[in-house]
Amino acid sequence: MDILENHGLGNGFSHPSETKGKVITCKAAVAWGPGLPLVVEEICVEPPHKMEVRIKILFTSVCHTDISAWKGENEAQRVYPRILGHEASGVVESVGEGVEDLKEGDHVIPIFNGECGECIYCKSGKTNNMCGKFRVNPFKSVMENDGKTRFFTKEGKPIYHFLNTSTFSQYTVIDSGCVVKIHPQASLKSMTLLSCCLSTGLGAVWNTANVEAGSSIAVFGLGAVGLAVVEGARTRGVSKIIGVDINPEKFIKGKAVGMTDSINPRELKMSVHEKIREITGGGVDYSFECAGNVDVLREAFLSTHDGWGLTVVLGIHPTPRLLPLHPMELFDGRNIVGSVFGGIKGKSQLPHIVHECMSGAIKLDGFITHELPFSKINEAFQLLIDGKSLRCVLHL
Amino acid sequence: MDILENHGLGNGFSHPSETKGKVITCKAAVAWGPGLPLVVEEICVEPPHKMEVRIKILFTSVCHTDISAWKGENEAQRVYPRILGHEASGVVESVGEGVEDLKEGDHVIPIFNGECGECIYCKSGKTNNMCGKFRVNPFKSVMENDGKTRFFTKEGKPIYHFLNTSTFSQYTVIDSGCVVKIHPQASLKSMTLLSCCLSTGLGAVWNTANVEAGSSIAVFGLGAVGLAVVEGARTRGVSKIIGVDINPEKFIKGKAVGMTDSINPRELKMSVHEKIREITGGGVDYSFECAGNVDVLREAFLSTHDGWGLTVVLGIHPTPRLLPLHPMELFDGRNIVGSVFGGIKGKSQLPHIVHECMSGAIKLDGFITHELPFSKINEAFQLLIDGKSLRCVLHL
Repeated sequence: MDILENHGLGNGFSHPSETKGKVITCKAAVAWGPGLPLVVEEICVEPPHKMEVRIKILFTSVCHTDISAWKGENEAQRVYPRILGHEASGVVESVGEGVEDLKEGDHVIPIFNGECGECIYCKSGKTNNMCGKFRVNPFKSVMENDGKTRFFTKEGKPIYHFLNTSTFSQYTVIDSGCVVKIHPQASLKSMTLLSCCLSTGLGAVWNTANVEAGSSIAVFGLGAVGLAVVEGARTRGVSKIIGVDINPEKFIKGKAVGMTDSINPRELKMSVHEKIREITGGGVDYSFECAGNVDVLREAFLSTHDGWGLTVVLGIHPTPRLLPLHPMELFDGRNIVGSVFGGIKGKSQLPHIVHECMSGAIKLDGFITHELPFSKINEAFQLLIDGKSLRCVLHL
Repeated sequence: MDILENHGLGNGFSHPSETKGKVITCKAAVAWGPGLPLVVEEICVEPPHKMEVRIKILFTSVCHTDISAWKGENEAQRVYPRILGHEASGVVESVGEGVEDLKEGDHVIPIFNGECGECIYCKSGKTNNMCGKFRVNPFKSVMENDGKTRFFTKEGKPIYHFLNTSTFSQYTVIDSGCVVKIHPQASLKSMTLLSCCLSTGLGAVWNTANVEAGSSIAVFGLGAVGLAVVEGARTRGVSKIIGVDINPEKFIKGKAVGMTDSINPRELKMSVHEKIREITGGGVDYSFECAGNVDVLREAFLSTHDGWGLTVVLGIHPTPRLLPLHPMELFDGRNIVGSVFGGIKGKSQLPHIVHECMSGAIKLDGFITHELPFSKINEAFQLLIDGKSLRCVLHL
């Protein structure tokens, strides 16, 4: 039975009660320097401190953000050795002092954008997810509690954390504010998608844009996040879902999920926004930029209908180039907003999304294109870099 | 009695029934070229065509947009001879075929941003005011009906229209979609403010930002629009209203209207946004940019609280410089939107605002700083250019 297999209790891991309170030695994929192949090696994982949780990771997948950090694209991110990874699922091995909402054996997913539940952001009635303690921070590499790591080499050298999660390890220690308990009968393998890509795309549609049935959208960039936008739009009853990508292979998957129209900019004799305005009679109601390119962002902005169009920025824009918009262009009634983790408050909202996945309302087929053993993690990186995979799930 | 004086029936104008259907010869202030003094001279005004209204203007005031067009700052605006002016009030002299919601004798104000009531924009449930026919368009200089003018010199040469209104004339012809009937007992002199500055500032607070009681705001630029923002915030029960201006004289008026704090950037040793974050514990909930300067706009953006801050752009930005924001800065949960005419649908919403003015809920004292006879219109221009007036009302 899938769920029992998910527990992985028969594959050589220790039983939780034997490891509680002790340092665990296990395998992790360690990044030793920018762009160097990850080394799957034995590391030591400390027990969880106050308000922390130690999780046995069963599945983890690779996202572009892992690749960006691995390459060290941003100088401030170059902290090594480090354990990357933020999309995953697993089982609680033990909890630290004060943790009340999680216990040994709970099925969980980590979230890089936590929810402490106590700060002005978590308590704000306005949709946002900028938790004062655990908001996404690519530069943070130690635990909130004491500014130290919970990972060490066998020689005792600290190994740094990543995005509040560090899931490329058989065991990881995470602040309880960044751990979401999920239904024990949900497929743990699929639930890895909720740690990042599915939540980001779906949440952008449901929360940030709050798209209504019968409206029209355009999605720029059909990676896993873009497909999650399509899925979010389909579940909302959007009547026109236009996918834009320069890789026509992406259209096959997009159409399977619910995309109604496709545009390949390389095959057009006009700009993308002109084409979209033409086929929609003035522009889409909403556009979603999932490409991380400011020129694409401008096309996404101009592709919406004047008067009420809304562009949601999901892509990570590493360039120093500013928003390619003139202030007066905002006077045409087109709006632009950013969306982090789909505006989702993880601990509050993800259990509902898990239920929607279990009921079949949200369809996850198609997002996981590859599966590999953990030892082949470098191969999984390459599949994503080459644009061959949407998500490759690693079995730990 | 003030209202009868407003009618102006005793000051030499003809009685409506004598002029209906005929060309009227009257005084207007004509712009003959960029920056040339306006010439108050006799012109001819045609009767209104289908769905048009001829209005006897009784009061008009001068706004920065008139000055910008008069100077011909934008090449495409250099259309002469032209009758400028868009803030005004008056009485309907006659109506064209098909006009059903207005009749001879109605007290009215013109609006540069009309509401046809029929197009997809006017019918949209989403707050916006981009009427498909009568949206603000500084480049339009003829009537919607036939692409011709209703103004002529005594020699028969066409004189061009401006912003759907052209109120620097004793009589003007306006599309009925750009004319709002107001309560006959409202002070016509004060109601000129609703044609532009008051509606723009108040509407930005009420409609665009939908500011709630107890929140905090910062207003960048304390001209008439900035003061209207302060007035809108006061009526909404905003608890902290910070005014920012480099002219400390503006603070006196601002504090009289409801401003709680003032900041003069020239007296600071830190940036304005740092100061605002300091005195508000993280930033204001809303900021309003009424200066038309992109550097000020960036300060306004950064002065809001992360997670939920909203910046509303009201200023006219003539420079080619783009928005000084990086896409990733949108990920901090700060939003930015533009607001034209305060997001007000004029014909639908202004009658309510007139009532609020008449009841005293909205206070208009202080906006009109000067009054002059129509013949001294060039003096009124200079008062605004020199920053000496907020609004100078001209009596026609």
